[in-house]
Amino acid sequence: MVRQLPVECANLQRAPTDTMKRYEIFADQIAELIRSGMLAPGEKVPSVRHASRTYGVSPSTVFQAYYLLEDRGLIQARARSGYFVRELARHSLAEPETSQQPTQTTEVDVSELVFSVLASLKDPGTVPFGSAFPSPQLFPLPRLARSMAQSVRDMQAQAVIADMTEGNPSLRRQIALRYMVSGVMLPLEELVITSGAMEALNLCLQTVTQPGDLVAIEAPAFYATLQVLERLKLKAVEIPVNPREGIDLNVLSERLASLPIKACWFMSSLQNPLGASMSDDKKRALYEVLHRHQVPLIEDDVYAELYFGSQPPKPVKSFDRDGLVMHCGSFSKCLAPGYRVGWVAGGRYAEQISRLKLMTTISPSVPAQAALADYLQHGGYDRHLRKLRHALEAQQASMLASAARHFPATTKVSRPSGGYFLWFEFPEQVDALRLFQLALAQGISLAPGPIFSATRRFGNCARLNYGHPWDAQSEQAMAVLGRILASF
Amino acid sequence: MVRQLPVECANLQRAPTDTMKRYEIFADQIAELIRSGMLAPGEKVPSVRHASRTYGVSPSTVFQAYYLLEDRGLIQARARSGYFVRELARHSLAEPETSQQPTQTTEVDVSELVFSVLASLKDPGTVPFGSAFPSPQLFPLPRLARSMAQSVRDMQAQAVIADMTEGNPSLRRQIALRYMVSGVMLPLEELVITSGAMEALNLCLQTVTQPGDLVAIEAPAFYATLQVLERLKLKAVEIPVNPREGIDLNVLSERLASLPIKACWFMSSLQNPLGASMSDDKKRALYEVLHRHQVPLIEDDVYAELYFGSQPPKPVKSFDRDGLVMHCGSFSKCLAPGYRVGWVAGGRYAEQISRLKLMTTISPSVPAQAALADYLQHGGYDRHLRKLRHALEAQQASMLASAARHFPATTKVSRPSGGYFLWFEFPEQVDALRLFQLALAQGISLAPGPIFSATRRFGNCARLNYGHPWDAQSEQAMAVLGRILASF
Repeated sequence: MVRQLPVECANLQRAPTDTMKRYEIFADQIAELIRSGMLAPGEKVPSVRHASRTYGVSPSTVFQAYYLLEDRGLIQARARSGYFVRELARHSLAEPETSQQPTQTTEVDVSELVFSVLASLKDPGTVPFGSAFPSPQLFPLPRLARSMAQSVRDMQAQAVIADMTEGNPSLRRQIALRYMVSGVMLPLEELVITSGAMEALNLCLQTVTQPGDLVAIEAPAFYATLQVLERLKLKAVEIPVNPREGIDLNVLSERLASLPIKACWFMSSLQNPLGASMSDDKKRALYEVLHRHQVPLIEDDVYAELYFGSQPPKPVKSFDRDGLVMHCGSFSKCLAPGYRVGWVAGGRYAEQISRLKLMTTISPSVPAQAALADYLQHGGYDRHLRKLRHALEAQQASMLASAARHFPATTKVSRPSGGYFLWFEFPEQVDALRLFQLALAQGISLAPGPIFSATRRFGNCARLNYGHPWDAQSEQAMAVLGRILASF
Repeated sequence: MVRQLPVECANLQRAPTDTMKRYEIFADQIAELIRSGMLAPGEKVPSVRHASRTYGVSPSTVFQAYYLLEDRGLIQARARSGYFVRELARHSLAEPETSQQPTQTTEVDVSELVFSVLASLKDPGTVPFGSAFPSPQLFPLPRLARSMAQSVRDMQAQAVIADMTEGNPSLRRQIALRYMVSGVMLPLEELVITSGAMEALNLCLQTVTQPGDLVAIEAPAFYATLQVLERLKLKAVEIPVNPREGIDLNVLSERLASLPIKACWFMSSLQNPLGASMSDDKKRALYEVLHRHQVPLIEDDVYAELYFGSQPPKPVKSFDRDGLVMHCGSFSKCLAPGYRVGWVAGGRYAEQISRLKLMTTISPSVPAQAALADYLQHGGYDRHLRKLRHALEAQQASMLASAARHFPATTKVSRPSGGYFLWFEFPEQVDALRLFQLALAQGISLAPGPIFSATRRFGNCARLNYGHPWDAQSEQAMAVLGRILASF
């Protein structure tokens, strides 16, 4: 069966660029059709001749695009029949619902649990489904090493002291440029370079809160969010999250109206752990609600570059008219883990954040900043990002298919449009902490649901990392997890 | 006049090592005699023949030592007469007294003032007497760049993630080894690698205090100490400091007995800004007092490597029997500013500190750690340190001499046995903040006394940095300062 697709579904409005070729753009359009369900698993993709005629591209462009999609694990060739959307499994698992509405405010006390989970990741022999990072094999480390060698060799002696206060000027320009390309005009003064996004988030929170204050966060939330709140003696107001659409704006509005919330800390795109991304309209609406109450948003956007679609998601920051949004980013998840360079576009709080930084760590490492500045300018960052996104997308498909093969049929799983985490909701009788221990005993790590909640909910959930190249060991580990799940 | 010196004054008990030659050891002994006043300015140093016979070293060793001392600015040759201790000035300035005893406890509010002083340092054309760092020209940056290039090229991919939790294993061993060589046996588990000493100090303080707690600090104190207390809403108990001998132990004992002090934050060697170093006996006594009260000590020892004597000062940590001392060090002042790598030997608090670090910045930059590990092993660190100490010692002599020439004769000045700061106490009518502004208008920075006190005392004092190679511009700047001082 070949479906006639409307031309506008795969229009080629985006022109080829220096770094992105025509066939890559075309492949992205087809991938989008597959993701959206317009092209279903098992369905035949348009023939080369048909696609070439319909979309006005050369047959060789179509061929190259299909080869790429085959590499990305999205389509497969069948002998003498052409290309088909890959059938991932006989059945696939359902998606989870929005998390239940939690109690109003909560003292946070989750660190001990988180540390015991993190400790489990130290053994390099463990299957790293519990890891917070993608495989370092996916990063261009040799190219980065060249940038590092080059930039420390060329560094002016004075820079090792001067660059501590303001940050590396070239890196600041490169980051501002990337904002500009994605449609956010950012005055350079707003930009504070930090020791990774974690420092940026800490500084933002300390800038706008005092111990005892209320902070709205997602439920489930990234566990470090909970640890930081605990450390700073802040109280959590948990806002439920839908696995596709993000936080429940109605609940947030109600909470803002009834409670003296001092700040919100949200991931508007590719939320950790659910993978939810708000639509542009919802992001705009979120900003308007916060603007009305004059409550600042700390926008944790560290997965921003790992989208699978053809366009980057817009940050809430792009709708910010009065500097209320502190937008935090990082290179740790998409380029250089361990370099510890992140930033915040701090809006009206930028100067306070910068001062606080001088009092706590003074500066991120100057050589690391210089190396990243050089790499961003000369290293082919956009090309690397495209490769990385394709690898992650293929690995997600592999883990979803494997889960459908091995996990109980009533398991629910998220379908994030980027990043490297899947969120599993297992049958009710599954105890995720027990699952964590049993899996660990078999050499498999995972992140159990309760570490993502101030109230220790999500007791039958877990986050699994698909950021590592999928191989026989991964498949084997999923089968083992399936057997443990069946034993509950 | 040639004085016969007792042999034991300059004994050569210390054997030459791989990195330190016999003539260097001999030169250090003579320098010690000069510093202690045993050899006074203008006095003739023993002739080569005499010294060779008395100390049992070869004439060529003596020659080389004297050339070195001439380079270091400590002695000078007079035609046909031999070598003489350099006469630094016709008169020299007196030393200041112990700071007066301040009020018991103080809310801290000094940040605004500090930031306006720091902002003045940004202009690279300014004479940097106000700087917190020595000249980067004194650091082996090209050699460090080689270590960096080498170590990022050889880095295992997994290390960029794994080294974030524990720190670079080789760097940890190298640091522990340096402790061992200086007589402190340190279990590796005590060592937490941090983003510079500033982060280490922040983490220590947060580990042992809550907002509102009392912390004993020095008066005058490093201004960042005051900023950190202010930020963490801690109250300062200021302990007076003698410019030679360090804090007043009697006052401290009395305060510990009468107030619920939760921690002490002291620099036991080369205190910033006074340059005071406690004797070993006093350090031991300090530990015993703290042990009796079970009050932890945060020992800020970032200038430890910059001593001018022949032996490194011992830290209070070396007397610690029960893990009460958190000893903080760094490479920023003696090797690699801007790399942002420091550490704390955290005693009984090490695990808590390490966890807090994971929640705030996760890790210092992994490449910077690897580069330092390589440099410490292969780069000739000890040789660099000796060169650096000699340069700083000569620059101190130049600034002291210049101050005696240009400043009012009733000015008092410290005589630190290391580091790169002099503390000036000007006549009472001098207003240091006004001096700061007038000097800045003439392109000269300095650190005015009030930024070193929670109670804005030291209004007629200033800290001047001699960490930059002394040249005509430095001399000229001192003359300008002298004229401004005379105008008060």
